Amino acid sequence: MRPSGRDLSEMRAVSIETNVTKHAEGSCLIKIGDTHVLCTASLEDRVPPFIKGSGLGWVTAEYGMLPRSTGSRMRREATTGKQGGRTVEIQRLIGRSLRAGVDRVALGERQITVDCDVLQADGGTRCASITGGWVALRLAVNKLMKTGAIVTDPLITPVAAVSCGLYAGQAVLDLDYAEDSEAGVDGNFILRGDGRLIEVQMSAEGATFDRKQMDQLMDLAEAGVAQLVAAQKAAVA
Amino acid sequence: MRPSGRDLSEMRAVSIETNVTKHAEGSCLIKIGDTHVLCTASLEDRVPPFIKGSGLGWVTAEYGMLPRSTGSRMRREATTGKQGGRTVEIQRLIGRSLRAGVDRVALGERQITVDCDVLQADGGTRCASITGGWVALRLAVNKLMKTGAIVTDPLITPVAAVSCGLYAGQAVLDLDYAEDSEAGVDGNFILRGDGRLIEVQMSAEGATFDRKQMDQLMDLAEAGVAQLVAAQKAAVA
Amino acid sequence: MRPSGRDLSEMRAVSIETNVTKHAEGSCLIKIGDTHVLCTASLEDRVPPFIKGSGLGWVTAEYGMLPRSTGSRMRREATTGKQGGRTVEIQRLIGRSLRAGVDRVALGERQITVDCDVLQADGGTRCASITGGWVALRLAVNKLMKTGAIVTDPLITPVAAVSCGLYAGQAVLDLDYAEDSEAGVDGNFILRGDGRLIEVQMSAEGATFDRKQMDQLMDLAEAGVAQLVAAQKAAVA
Amino acid sequence: MRPSGRDLSEMRAVSIETNVTKHAEGSCLIKIGDTHVLCTASLEDRVPPFIKGSGLGWVTAEYGMLPRSTGSRMRREATTGKQGGRTVEIQRLIGRSLRAGVDRVALGERQITVDCDVLQADGGTRCASITGGWVALRLAVNKLMKTGAIVTDPLITPVAAVSCGLYAGQAVLDLDYAEDSEAGVDGNFILRGDGRLIEVQMSAEGATFDRKQMDQLMDLAEAGVAQLVAAQKAAVA
Amino acid sequence: MRPSGRDLSEMRAVSIETNVTKHAEGSCLIKIGDTHVLCTASLEDRVPPFIKGSGLGWVTAEYGMLPRSTGSRMRREATTGKQGGRTVEIQRLIGRSLRAGVDRVALGERQITVDCDVLQADGGTRCASITGGWVALRLAVNKLMKTGAIVTDPLITPVAAVSCGLYAGQAVLDLDYAEDSEAGVDGNFILRGDGRLIEVQMSAEGATFDRKQMDQLMDLAEAGVAQLVAAQKAAVA
Amino acid sequence: MRPSGRDLSEMRAVSIETNVTKHAEGSCLIKIGDTHVLCTASLEDRVPPFIKGSGLGWVTAEYGMLPRSTGSRMRREATTGKQGGRTVEIQRLIGRSLRAGVDRVALGERQITVDCDVLQADGGTRCASITGGWVALRLAVNKLMKTGAIVTDPLITPVAAVSCGLYAGQAVLDLDYAEDSEAGVDGNFILRGDGRLIEVQMSAEGATFDRKQMDQLMDLAEAGVAQLVAAQKAAVA
Repeated sequence: MRPSGRDLSEMRAVSIETNVTKHAEGSCLIKIGDTHVLCTASLEDRVPPFIKGSGLGWVTAEYGMLPRSTGSRMRREATTGKQGGRTVEIQRLIGRSLRAGVDRVALGERQITVDCDVLQADGGTRCASITGGWVALRLAVNKLMKTGAIVTDPLITPVAAVSCGLYAGQAVLDLDYAEDSEAGVDGNFILRGDGRLIEVQMSAEGATFDRKQMDQLMDLAEAGVAQLVAAQKAAVA
Repeated sequence: MRPSGRDLSEMRAVSIETNVTKHAEGSCLIKIGDTHVLCTASLEDRVPPFIKGSGLGWVTAEYGMLPRSTGSRMRREATTGKQGGRTVEIQRLIGRSLRAGVDRVALGERQITVDCDVLQADGGTRCASITGGWVALRLAVNKLMKTGAIVTDPLITPVAAVSCGLYAGQAVLDLDYAEDSEAGVDGNFILRGDGRLIEVQMSAEGATFDRKQMDQLMDLAEAGVAQLVAAQKAAVA
Repeated sequence: MRPSGRDLSEMRAVSIETNVTKHAEGSCLIKIGDTHVLCTASLEDRVPPFIKGSGLGWVTAEYGMLPRSTGSRMRREATTGKQGGRTVEIQRLIGRSLRAGVDRVALGERQITVDCDVLQADGGTRCASITGGWVALRLAVNKLMKTGAIVTDPLITPVAAVSCGLYAGQAVLDLDYAEDSEAGVDGNFILRGDGRLIEVQMSAEGATFDRKQMDQLMDLAEAGVAQLVAAQKAAVA
Repeated sequence: MRPSGRDLSEMRAVSIETNVTKHAEGSCLIKIGDTHVLCTASLEDRVPPFIKGSGLGWVTAEYGMLPRSTGSRMRREATTGKQGGRTVEIQRLIGRSLRAGVDRVALGERQITVDCDVLQADGGTRCASITGGWVALRLAVNKLMKTGAIVTDPLITPVAAVSCGLYAGQAVLDLDYAEDSEAGVDGNFILRGDGRLIEVQMSAEGATFDRKQMDQLMDLAEAGVAQLVAAQKAAVA
Repeated sequence: MRPSGRDLSEMRAVSIETNVTKHAEGSCLIKIGDTHVLCTASLEDRVPPFIKGSGLGWVTAEYGMLPRSTGSRMRREATTGKQGGRTVEIQRLIGRSLRAGVDRVALGERQITVDCDVLQADGGTRCASITGGWVALRLAVNKLMKTGAIVTDPLITPVAAVSCGLYAGQAVLDLDYAEDSEAGVDGNFILRGDGRLIEVQMSAEGATFDRKQMDQLMDLAEAGVAQLVAAQKAAVA
Repeated sequence: MRPSGRDLSEMRAVSIETNVTKHAEGSCLIKIGDTHVLCTASLEDRVPPFIKGSGLGWVTAEYGMLPRSTGSRMRREATTGKQGGRTVEIQRLIGRSLRAGVDRVALGERQITVDCDVLQADGGTRCASITGGWVALRLAVNKLMKTGAIVTDPLITPVAAVSCGLYAGQAVLDLDYAEDSEAGVDGNFILRGDGRLIEVQMSAEGATFDRKQMDQLMDLAEAGVAQLVAAQKAAVA
């Protein structure tokens, strides 16, 4: 029934290649099916004003799509004079989600910026960015711990995300673009490695939903994130 | 236990004053406790390019806060050169939520823009904007139906929203600013008049949550929205 | 002869409601007929660089119109990327006019920002903003004097403004929108409470004028401002 | 008493050199003392949307200062991302003033843009721009009439402007920078060749004024503009 | 003598992987040593106004660097509100160079946009972008010819580019970042497949040069470009 | 053969008038035929962050064209919100070229900004800006040396620039606009007073070129710059 022929509760193939750029403190290329995102974690000099002198750290994220990561070429945001509303929404979500897995005291007064740049898009880019972004962050923190800059591990738990939705009236896991553009309800689920919830966003697009359907999507999301966390752990091992 | 002395499941006082400006096709001033939002619905000449010739209508929203609607003065967005990320996120949510209650075929090829301007803020401004925005929209559509411009009512159902969250470890309804700034988990729930879900956003801030807590928040939200829908119906009667 | 049926030298009804928002140090909602402006005065942390260390204070103003304060919806300035020329002109005028009534030594090295936001427009919004803005400023200064932050009253005199013009060849007081859009000559007159002049702007639009007509407009303006100053004094009493 | 040694009612030396650039339809370099403004009038292809199909013409103006036209270098507006408030105010004034001398029916549906670029500033740049801008406009219209593109002369009257103010308590004509920066009251007076008034702006800066002083400034302005109009006529003869 | 141990006239390893994204009409990932650039060619709907109705085609280019493609993280251009001067300069060069190899009549009235996004930078990104950009363009044109949309091949010749410079007083081929940041003279040489010159830019940075040195750099460039053209031909074969 | 009737190796008339504005530390109006550029050199308070505390000086440049310096009016860059790509490219070239003639140690930790504003354009504005910009810089430095602020002359050598190109298949010196817009190859050559090369840019527009033609253009450029340097020396003598 699904355009890809997958089962309702079947994820796309997941691959996470680490250390893909020689400059970043941590990096990976995450592929969730045909969605490919390059994630880098950079230890940055500048610290946001609101943490100066607090002893607390900060993790933030930026998101971008290459102009031809999509089916038809999008206008480059650098030429339009600003990031679009969707971009801003997504990078705020990525940053918020990653911070939920960070002990900011243990991190100490420093900022790590996670850049998620979509090389090829096929649905679920924000979830792939969170999942891959955590891997880049983990690798950057490992490097800081190896040098002794950080003593206590500030990464409490993996953070991973998956989208689920109602497609042709059925709850399905890990929507690809063909499904996403037709789904009546679309949700993003960000969880910790231990299954606790960080953020849930469910949104009707042309349909509505009830609490029973919400529960079905939650069940799928928990199963999907468990697979992603396993892939994260394997990648950083 | 709540700073305001309210019960856990008690909403703030709700008041909706209609037809508050002589120019707009529909308008109201909604007050949820000390949160006051002026909502206007304007029939606009310009139609977004993607609906031209489709016969379908469009409802969109814009959101703003007066600089001193808040405890300390915020910079005016018109002087900063762009709308901030939070503003963009909120106005996209308002537009999406209102459209979920609209039959775009019945509306016909025209655009209605709902402006939600916060005169005084005390938490829950996006939910108040959705609830009040629907009232303004309803009044504007009534006017169009009275003139015969629209024949079939395009407003399928009321749309209303409320925030709930975990405050001091307890699920509470309709967070005010004092609660919102301390809440470990904060959620926005947008529902139709018949109780079906349009959008759910739950986000951990410094805490995490589990599915049982999610259910508690959902229960509160359903009760709260029922009260808001009653107030909407009374206002437009 | 006037669209509203008013006498040539008759002002619209004036009402000034004070303390309309719980956050601002001073605030009022001024109504000059159907022109409604919400004015707030905010004591601000940031001080302009040119007064740092001078011991002198600063009063500045910002002006905005809600998108549907007008007959047809205007584009929101926050979305256009900048304030339009008219807005900039008006807020510079408001700030300059209010400062003319302020003893900047007595104010001390602090900034008060007066925000004038038009909720409903029917002509004369800049004059209403100055008149209402002074009331908000007066209330904010009163608060600072009550706390002892300011010892000598820095407000030398009330400041108020009215528009006059040549409509259908006749000098009329307090133009409403119907008159303003047809007037051959349009003037704004800003005066102190003692009748001394702060700023005079007279501008021909499609007509020209002579010194005798200038004198007629001045006479009307003096009478109008006297009524406004009385309303200001009553409001802050 | 005046820094320049001039009498109270003495203007600076006025020189208007015409046809200073080979490209513009009309141009002049106007020098009022050490204030030098290059004015060009360009017949433009683009017509503002609001006159399309109306048969009416439009005259508009733009104003700029070279970065080192002033005592200390100013930031180039092209690098700041927008024209400042003062620039916008001035160019709106120039355009409005010039249009007051134009018969827009006779001009026909075309736009002439007058650019006023300050090469060297010493006070009174906006008045010099209006006076010189009219000369450039006159020359451009002459060219259009010679070609037969325009049949009836659309320039009803010369338009010229001068500043007057209260300096050291005395009414003086044609303020230079040394006076302007110290003046208690500063006014700009835009008149037609026949002495009728187009725009009057008087503004207190640190002082106030009364109607008798207003009259003194008006007397000076009338005398000054008469000299400027004579210079304009000589230049275009 | 060179930091990399290369001979003076030795290029870095060149690799060109084609068809790296499923969406673009043509694409490649070009690696010149540690400089990695993702190039895509997109057939675009929008055509620049100046070719409308001319029957001529257009090829344009855009360039970007991922924030952490460099040793320390750069600010994302989409967040700064505009493309920097260096970016603009480079993308104009890429577009101009590629157009020099295009028969715009044979291309027909359509636009192809070549995006060059630097994933990892180690000097010579603009030259790699031109060389890889031509491969992407070639592949996109092949696709258009296969479908019959284009009949005569519009690509007259390969276009490739290499940098040469004076490093430690010696002429060297294909500068990497370590050399580029120390070079006294730095040049970019864009040539056609037949060796004719399209663009030459030589620039002294802290040194100057003479015509003999210019000739040495030209000799190196010709040899380098010959190797690049061979690699291009192999890639698109 | 040339539109102007000049010989292939004949420059246009060169004139350099110095000290043309009373405010700038150094200034000149350079005329190369009908290309007229006003150049000012300003000693600026602000110093770029990267030289703070280094003891080194900085010379930078900005470039602009008056809207009607060209055959048809261009849009004013201050109104478009940013400098165009061509402007940015040119002002970077001017600054780089002038710095190549400056001993930044001898200059000391201060910034001089050279503004080049085109009053009338007829081709070759960037070369005229460099040549005239050096004169303004020389005069400003002379002033600093006279006051003793600078002891050792930081200007090692004059810097001048000329354009050459292939017009109708022939190498010609100092292209005017009529030639520039038709030239198959266009080059800019920036040299020191002693003939050493600072920057060479040759670019094919619709044609290509070979090394023999490059040599012909170089020969012309050397002869042309020698004349310009003589004019510079005469102007500052």
